[in-house]
Amino acid sequence: MEKANVQAYCFSGTDPHQSEYLPGHWQSRSFISGFTGSAGLVIVTRDNTALWTDSRYFLQAATELDGTGIEMMKQRVAGTPEPAEWLSETLSQADTVGTDFSCMSINQYKQFSSDLAAKGLSLKDTGDLLAAFWEDRPTMPTNKISEHELQFAGTKRTDKFKGVLQFVKANGANATVITALDDLAWTFNLRGTDVDFNPVFIGFAFLSEDQKILFVDSIKIDSNLADQLQEEGIQLREYVGFYDFLLNLKDDRVVMLDPARTNQAVRDAIPDAVRIIEQTSAPTLLKAQKSTFEIIHIRETMKKDGAAMVNFLYWLDKTVGKSPMTEYDVVEKLEYFRSQQEGFRGNSFYPIVGLNGNGAIVHRSVTKETAASICDEGILLFDSGGQYLGGTTDITRTIALSKPTKMQKRDFTLVLKGMIGLSMAQFPAGTVGSNLDCYARMHLWKNGMNYGHGTGHGIGYFLNVHEGPMSIRQEYNEQTIKPGMVLSNEPGLYREGEYGIRIENVIVCIENEETPFGRFLAFETLTLCPIDLTLVDKKLLTAEEMDWINQYHKKVLKKLSPLLENEQLDFLKKLTREIN
Amino acid sequence: MEKANVQAYCFSGTDPHQSEYLPGHWQSRSFISGFTGSAGLVIVTRDNTALWTDSRYFLQAATELDGTGIEMMKQRVAGTPEPAEWLSETLSQADTVGTDFSCMSINQYKQFSSDLAAKGLSLKDTGDLLAAFWEDRPTMPTNKISEHELQFAGTKRTDKFKGVLQFVKANGANATVITALDDLAWTFNLRGTDVDFNPVFIGFAFLSEDQKILFVDSIKIDSNLADQLQEEGIQLREYVGFYDFLLNLKDDRVVMLDPARTNQAVRDAIPDAVRIIEQTSAPTLLKAQKSTFEIIHIRETMKKDGAAMVNFLYWLDKTVGKSPMTEYDVVEKLEYFRSQQEGFRGNSFYPIVGLNGNGAIVHRSVTKETAASICDEGILLFDSGGQYLGGTTDITRTIALSKPTKMQKRDFTLVLKGMIGLSMAQFPAGTVGSNLDCYARMHLWKNGMNYGHGTGHGIGYFLNVHEGPMSIRQEYNEQTIKPGMVLSNEPGLYREGEYGIRIENVIVCIENEETPFGRFLAFETLTLCPIDLTLVDKKLLTAEEMDWINQYHKKVLKKLSPLLENEQLDFLKKLTREIN
Repeated sequence: MEKANVQAYCFSGTDPHQSEYLPGHWQSRSFISGFTGSAGLVIVTRDNTALWTDSRYFLQAATELDGTGIEMMKQRVAGTPEPAEWLSETLSQADTVGTDFSCMSINQYKQFSSDLAAKGLSLKDTGDLLAAFWEDRPTMPTNKISEHELQFAGTKRTDKFKGVLQFVKANGANATVITALDDLAWTFNLRGTDVDFNPVFIGFAFLSEDQKILFVDSIKIDSNLADQLQEEGIQLREYVGFYDFLLNLKDDRVVMLDPARTNQAVRDAIPDAVRIIEQTSAPTLLKAQKSTFEIIHIRETMKKDGAAMVNFLYWLDKTVGKSPMTEYDVVEKLEYFRSQQEGFRGNSFYPIVGLNGNGAIVHRSVTKETAASICDEGILLFDSGGQYLGGTTDITRTIALSKPTKMQKRDFTLVLKGMIGLSMAQFPAGTVGSNLDCYARMHLWKNGMNYGHGTGHGIGYFLNVHEGPMSIRQEYNEQTIKPGMVLSNEPGLYREGEYGIRIENVIVCIENEETPFGRFLAFETLTLCPIDLTLVDKKLLTAEEMDWINQYHKKVLKKLSPLLENEQLDFLKKLTREIN
Repeated sequence: MEKANVQAYCFSGTDPHQSEYLPGHWQSRSFISGFTGSAGLVIVTRDNTALWTDSRYFLQAATELDGTGIEMMKQRVAGTPEPAEWLSETLSQADTVGTDFSCMSINQYKQFSSDLAAKGLSLKDTGDLLAAFWEDRPTMPTNKISEHELQFAGTKRTDKFKGVLQFVKANGANATVITALDDLAWTFNLRGTDVDFNPVFIGFAFLSEDQKILFVDSIKIDSNLADQLQEEGIQLREYVGFYDFLLNLKDDRVVMLDPARTNQAVRDAIPDAVRIIEQTSAPTLLKAQKSTFEIIHIRETMKKDGAAMVNFLYWLDKTVGKSPMTEYDVVEKLEYFRSQQEGFRGNSFYPIVGLNGNGAIVHRSVTKETAASICDEGILLFDSGGQYLGGTTDITRTIALSKPTKMQKRDFTLVLKGMIGLSMAQFPAGTVGSNLDCYARMHLWKNGMNYGHGTGHGIGYFLNVHEGPMSIRQEYNEQTIKPGMVLSNEPGLYREGEYGIRIENVIVCIENEETPFGRFLAFETLTLCPIDLTLVDKKLLTAEEMDWINQYHKKVLKKLSPLLENEQLDFLKKLTREIN
């Protein structure tokens, strides 16, 4: 910091692609602070270090930061200073804050530099200060890139280029950069293993009518694939060459870039003479609305994932209380049963498993060491998902291992009513997610309860389990919910130290009807897995909700039956019994 | 325009105070175009004139513009060019658009000038071009200002000054301008009659610790009131002196102003050396949360308004089908019955009355000439309200004059379910209106129906019937709903050419409970007037909704009984009969 002449240094906690999950090479936040959550900002000054993180990670951060001297800042909690505010109290007027602009989005840069400016401080690109002294730093990943075969991708990459460039043109530009890793993987029908859980690879791309350039390290592409790509008119260049390429852009380029998903170093590399149009990236918008082809594959994938879940539930039922078992066994068995399914390519995130009070820790990451023993008592929450060639899954179920209490049944049923309410919603085209969020919360709200996370996030297609730009949550997001968008539907309820409840299905937005009042959309539920009826308090359900459950279970039974063996099938029949 | 050297001139359609209802002096849009709606923008070029207005006024504008050669531009309809876009097609590069900056808010100025700049056009202050040749222009209003007595206002103006300045200080300023007329009336506990329906007066104010200046024409204040104000330390200056005063502000002033409610000429008058802090105006925020004192008075006012409504309903019931009657008689009778109540000071807006198909014209302004005859058939919608010393009311009821059809009952009941749903909602503190809007729409949406207006607007206290900053509508509004905020709750359904349904009550946000999950708010319904049970399809109601109706009617009967005579009371008893 002294050499760089800055009085503070900021670890934005991401990589040059604004990824949620990072290759080890860019896990500088966890290197410097020991905090391993997926969201957080670390600022180091001469005398102090502080970490800002959100409510999902308050408990985890408190544990991981214990004894480090690093101060925890609880985001969105009254009284917590914003980073710029904290810095202004720590530094002197006219001091400079350093950071690595390649690990900060254009939007973050704008916001942070203007916040700092308002306090008389400035922000400066110092590059990666850790480069000099991070021993044992993981190298840049060299994992091989593979083709996402057309039988699963459905659309040729050359057709995707056309779609992207059409969008670019419609926005007044003639070229675009692709900087987010899932955008890149989708556009090129390629997949990688550079990051845990997200089947993406490190790279950039530049697309125009005359140039389609993929910037990835050549070691990652075997010769067959390289030949194939070049045959299709795609130029291959080394990853680090991207910035140099940009520096030499001609001024007849009008480049569209996404300020939320492009880093400030990319922005700075583009010559001033080149016009820039800031706009949500074309692949982000295009891939959000899954094609009919993709949805057909997702339906097939959901059968496999559902069958794996039923096999897991059967195993759990037979084993719990009879053989010793911990939460970690659940993590492993979930993966094991999925791995028995064709096309499985790994977990889509690290499974969240919580028995009783542990279930109330929303983003708990259980290890062999921290795993609690499970006997046949209490409530077990498990949130998991798989990457399959034909789609990405994400499901949470909460089950009773013993006779539930009245309060547990009431809580579960109120959560379930919200999940069903959103599942059954019909709404006009043009509706945004924050207009729909209360379908999932209203029954909890009415009873003085709530949950502190969003209701729904977008989900990729054999891609990231968290995919933008849409969401269903209280916070405003201008993106309207459109046909083909695949989202989670996951209300919950958490009683600290007692238990956590979450019920999560994946839903897809569909065109539902056109009336004199306009086009109306709705959701189709894609996830196929029974909901624990022993936790349902039928007295709290309307006839319509009861009917939804019965219809859902009927469908689950019908779709999963062909994939299950005798005993598991009998078990499923029991789980999907009709209620009334 | 030639003299001013501009190639186009824009009538923003408001006054120097961003009022919704304007004194005749500033009704330049209607003078120039003949369009009398409350929202619209007129742009004149050498060869063309166009008017932009929103869906509420499409029908009215089409009629009023007929034969004028003025083109109608439907706002928020696909394919309608934005004003800047239209101008860029009409004018030449580098042309200038003129407007009167004193009739354009700072926000509008920023947006419009940047839209024009993007098209290579510029915006210039020409002052009021009509001043030179508008013969018979209404003069500036000279109506007297009166005290809103403390027995109704509840809080002394000197205490309001303190509250305002406390807020100003907390935002880093040491002075503020008050430019919106309702803000001014509230802060000074004064009322006027310069504008139809809104009990406000033309003026500005400047507030700091050392100066409290009210800029109003001296002719408007009688000597007693002037003495009283001066005794309280308030300086009085002429209205036009406000701009001169600003030009001479010392540079130790830090002035808070509200860019949404302050005009650009005010902004331009403040010397560059004076720091400006842009922020929603303190009176806007403070007056939005009604005091307990005010709410007690509103409850009393609602009894009077409800009694007037029941007297009206009784008259209607006795007269309809027996004596000739038109929609205009309804307009007059609504005012007549309200005028019988103590403290009534006029309508809070021009009543909207629509029989059958006319009810589907959302903002219909019926005149003696356009009024339809009412016989005892069909559905009648009436939306009206009163200004009382103890509050402002706004109520819509839709009643059946003959046996309703099945579809009418279904439509009415679905609207009613939404109105009840919002009335019964409980929600966490921090919720914004767009999170709540779907309570009112979900039953319509589910059946492929919707309405094209917001669900709820803020309401003043013996002030404007439309009061910011909060709202309940699909469009995002960052203002959270807070205890004491008074809003309308008015879902509707409109079948063009057939009938319109709207059911509107006034509600107030209240603290409801505190649980381990946080503070929860709810609404108390303030309006006291029966809902037409003959339009209710009981089969569509849940037990909870049925109970809400019965409880509501029980309360209406109890509260209004003491204010009604025998026959009207008997009639109310019939209207509020229990259903099951």
